[in-house]
Amino acid sequence: MIEKDELAYIKSRLDFWDKLSESEINLLENNIANVSYNKGFNLHSTDSECLGVLLIKNGGLRVYILSEDGREITLYRLSPGDVCVLSASCIINSITFDVHIDAESDTDAYLINIGTFSKLSNQNVYVENFAYKNTNERFSDVMWAMEQILFMSFDKRLAIFLLDEITKTNSNELHLTQEQIAKYIGSAREVVSRMLKVFQSEGILEQSRGSIHIIDKEKLRELI
Amino acid sequence: MIEKDELAYIKSRLDFWDKLSESEINLLENNIANVSYNKGFNLHSTDSECLGVLLIKNGGLRVYILSEDGREITLYRLSPGDVCVLSASCIINSITFDVHIDAESDTDAYLINIGTFSKLSNQNVYVENFAYKNTNERFSDVMWAMEQILFMSFDKRLAIFLLDEITKTNSNELHLTQEQIAKYIGSAREVVSRMLKVFQSEGILEQSRGSIHIIDKEKLRELI
Repeated sequence: MIEKDELAYIKSRLDFWDKLSESEINLLENNIANVSYNKGFNLHSTDSECLGVLLIKNGGLRVYILSEDGREITLYRLSPGDVCVLSASCIINSITFDVHIDAESDTDAYLINIGTFSKLSNQNVYVENFAYKNTNERFSDVMWAMEQILFMSFDKRLAIFLLDEITKTNSNELHLTQEQIAKYIGSAREVVSRMLKVFQSEGILEQSRGSIHIIDKEKLRELI
Repeated sequence: MIEKDELAYIKSRLDFWDKLSESEINLLENNIANVSYNKGFNLHSTDSECLGVLLIKNGGLRVYILSEDGREITLYRLSPGDVCVLSASCIINSITFDVHIDAESDTDAYLINIGTFSKLSNQNVYVENFAYKNTNERFSDVMWAMEQILFMSFDKRLAIFLLDEITKTNSNELHLTQEQIAKYIGSAREVVSRMLKVFQSEGILEQSRGSIHIIDKEKLRELI
């Protein structure tokens, strides 16, 4: 059973909650479970059964596709607070592909089981809407990944810019906002933000408010 | 103004119609226009204004992304009867990427202008749902294209299978259903169906009920 304060959190992440009837709320509250996955655990694959909808408490998930010869392509990552809907893709008719989902670190999550989510989604258009909208957002993530993979230009451009700045200022500490960088290299703030996060996760740099600390110049050079 | 029998057709393609109020129907009926595009016309690009939602009457659209150095990647194609929602992507918050859309042949379509669609989508959850669901379907198309581009295995597998069958039966006419082919090469009927359509559009083969006529064996060989 889920605690009261936990329910408040879950409610805040599921924007269809206010549109549920009393009986739907009861159904949902009685069918949310705490689940935990060890780092590396594969919780969804192309031939596994459909798990349901996950809300990540801590840890993180990686969603990827796998070629027949074992090559992996990461589509996107999910962090605490994110909702994973593709682990319920079997009930979304408009989704005809399948993905793999792994726990990237030890992960705790709330799980709405597939039967419950399916029932709610069938009888309440706002729940269905939530699933579609969430999937649309992931579509945007995938398009971003696809452009990175196929066009491979923006990471290079950003790396070149950062190295130039280091040389110019003779310091590994760059006092620049994402907005400024976006302007300098003719891109959108959002795109810069995403790529800086990738660089951060790769140990290339660390971000703090209004500044970027370059940790690994060599890795940055390798990108060019 | 749109004719009565045309309205019946439009209605059949927009599954939110039955959920519209009378005033919403009036608004919609008064804001659908006939539009025509010449072959090759670019009707949506990353910096153009948002057009609205299109329902294709005849002809066809190609949706693609473009790299900075001018490389194009086709995401999917739309045919008569298909609804194009990404030409209204500016009003879908969950979509943060942008695409190019060209008329692939002379194309006639019905256009619901962006203001009208935006208004309907804001006030009626079923219209919003329609846009999300349609985009989800395109997400599936994009995933398929992405796997083809990145993994490049299925077209080869299918080409090998078809060439083997030609040799085996000593005939360019293969009496096989998509279901049977899917079973033989260990894939899904839907995937086979999609690839056969691609082969057909490339002039490699022609399909009729229960049989496939191979027209260009050389092209098929080139795939391997």
